[in-house]
Amino acid sequence: MPTSSLERSVFFVSDGTGITAETMGHSVLTQFDQFQFREVRIPFVDELGKAQAAVQRINDASVRDGLRPIVFTTLVNPEMNRVLHQSQGLVLDLFASFVAPLEQELRVKSTQTIGGFHNMSDADAYTNRMEAINFTLAHDDGQSSKGLKEADVILLGVSRSGKTPTTLYLAMQFGLKAANYPLIPEDFERDTLPEALPPFREKLFGLTILPERLAEIRHERRPNSKYASLANCRYEVEAAEKMMKRESVRWLSSTTKSIEEIAATIIEEIKIDRRSY
Amino acid sequence: MPTSSLERSVFFVSDGTGITAETMGHSVLTQFDQFQFREVRIPFVDELGKAQAAVQRINDASVRDGLRPIVFTTLVNPEMNRVLHQSQGLVLDLFASFVAPLEQELRVKSTQTIGGFHNMSDADAYTNRMEAINFTLAHDDGQSSKGLKEADVILLGVSRSGKTPTTLYLAMQFGLKAANYPLIPEDFERDTLPEALPPFREKLFGLTILPERLAEIRHERRPNSKYASLANCRYEVEAAEKMMKRESVRWLSSTTKSIEEIAATIIEEIKIDRRSY
Repeated sequence: MPTSSLERSVFFVSDGTGITAETMGHSVLTQFDQFQFREVRIPFVDELGKAQAAVQRINDASVRDGLRPIVFTTLVNPEMNRVLHQSQGLVLDLFASFVAPLEQELRVKSTQTIGGFHNMSDADAYTNRMEAINFTLAHDDGQSSKGLKEADVILLGVSRSGKTPTTLYLAMQFGLKAANYPLIPEDFERDTLPEALPPFREKLFGLTILPERLAEIRHERRPNSKYASLANCRYEVEAAEKMMKRESVRWLSSTTKSIEEIAATIIEEIKIDRRSY
Repeated sequence: MPTSSLERSVFFVSDGTGITAETMGHSVLTQFDQFQFREVRIPFVDELGKAQAAVQRINDASVRDGLRPIVFTTLVNPEMNRVLHQSQGLVLDLFASFVAPLEQELRVKSTQTIGGFHNMSDADAYTNRMEAINFTLAHDDGQSSKGLKEADVILLGVSRSGKTPTTLYLAMQFGLKAANYPLIPEDFERDTLPEALPPFREKLFGLTILPERLAEIRHERRPNSKYASLANCRYEVEAAEKMMKRESVRWLSSTTKSIEEIAATIIEEIKIDRRSY
């Protein structure tokens, strides 16, 4: 039975993890938000047989839906790509679109290698990333003030303002050593920054959040507690913002931002970027 | 002074975080690995003035290098995109390449919105992701056997085989609740799986690693220890693989894989994928 014309099957086909195909595909598909997309990732297509199997799945979906599936591909190998282009899907091909103009611009042929982890600089990048993740885990939630000198950034904010996921993302995606410190009622009573932090003022970055949203998030964790009450959330957020303002700590509101947006903004603001690709 | 023709300036220009432009750009640029690319990310280009400033930076690089910069863009707004296309760079445009064929296929105009965090389903996805990250942190390194029932996957392996970063990546990128348990010498002496695990056999997934690589990684942490010695690494890896084989735990070797590849392989193998886009 043909499906509604507002539903479509989407395939992400890749010789690697499929993460690039998916990232690029999602970015494009957000432009068509009236549609519902049924998404299938087909990673590790590194043999002709797997490319043929992918075509079979695409063609099956085409028959089932009565509509042409959309196929995002980052296949590099020309032979496998040719197989994929014979499918009944609309094939949107990252390399076909961009590699040809680049070959012309750079006046070389592309190496047509498959992405991944293949040489020493990858092993170094892996080690850096591991170190950043270990540092970040050891410096989550003010657990340790040792080694803050090594930190690339130290996030500050009230409990549940988004510090932990942001520091983990900074470590994982950007290889940054990111510590985080909670601002707690004791800090507001004393009305000073946690004592380990003033020496590292230039690395501090604050996260704040709308009290209403904070109360929602805290309610999921500890329903009907004083901790989660809107009055308490208002008090803590106001006190934290006042303190950050006085101490000249830059900050942003995490309320309507994704982790990716928060992380990218912090990097822009404090001009840190250690990635070495 | 013109730079060597094997160096090029590359810009990633986006109205959002720039992560999509960069992911797609890196994927394409790996095909030209004889070049050295100097990369500049210009995120949050959401006003004409910022687009003009980006053009200025691109043109400055063009003059400085004596070579045309390469520009990957995911700008959606047609007016800002038009400004960018007037730069002296070679502009490789995700939306121009893929949105037009999709508009034709889907018989609608794209919404030309900027990606990001804008509606309730994003807030739900955010909450799921937070829960997954919290679960994963609480179940790192066998810290807790409470709530393993809720886990989507439980990774097993010797110390430093890559479990922690993989579980964090699974949580962060895919919203999966991923626990991890170390296999330690005591487990090998007893010759049984850690006692919390047998009830969850179908969720177990092992990581192994070449003893030589493991010794290197451990040496960075505890130089010249028995823990890091090649003999000990060989013993532990062999014992772990023997145990996983006997207990029918699927496993893979992390030795030459990136975290992304390990995570994508695990998802393929155990057929879990909770993302809801």
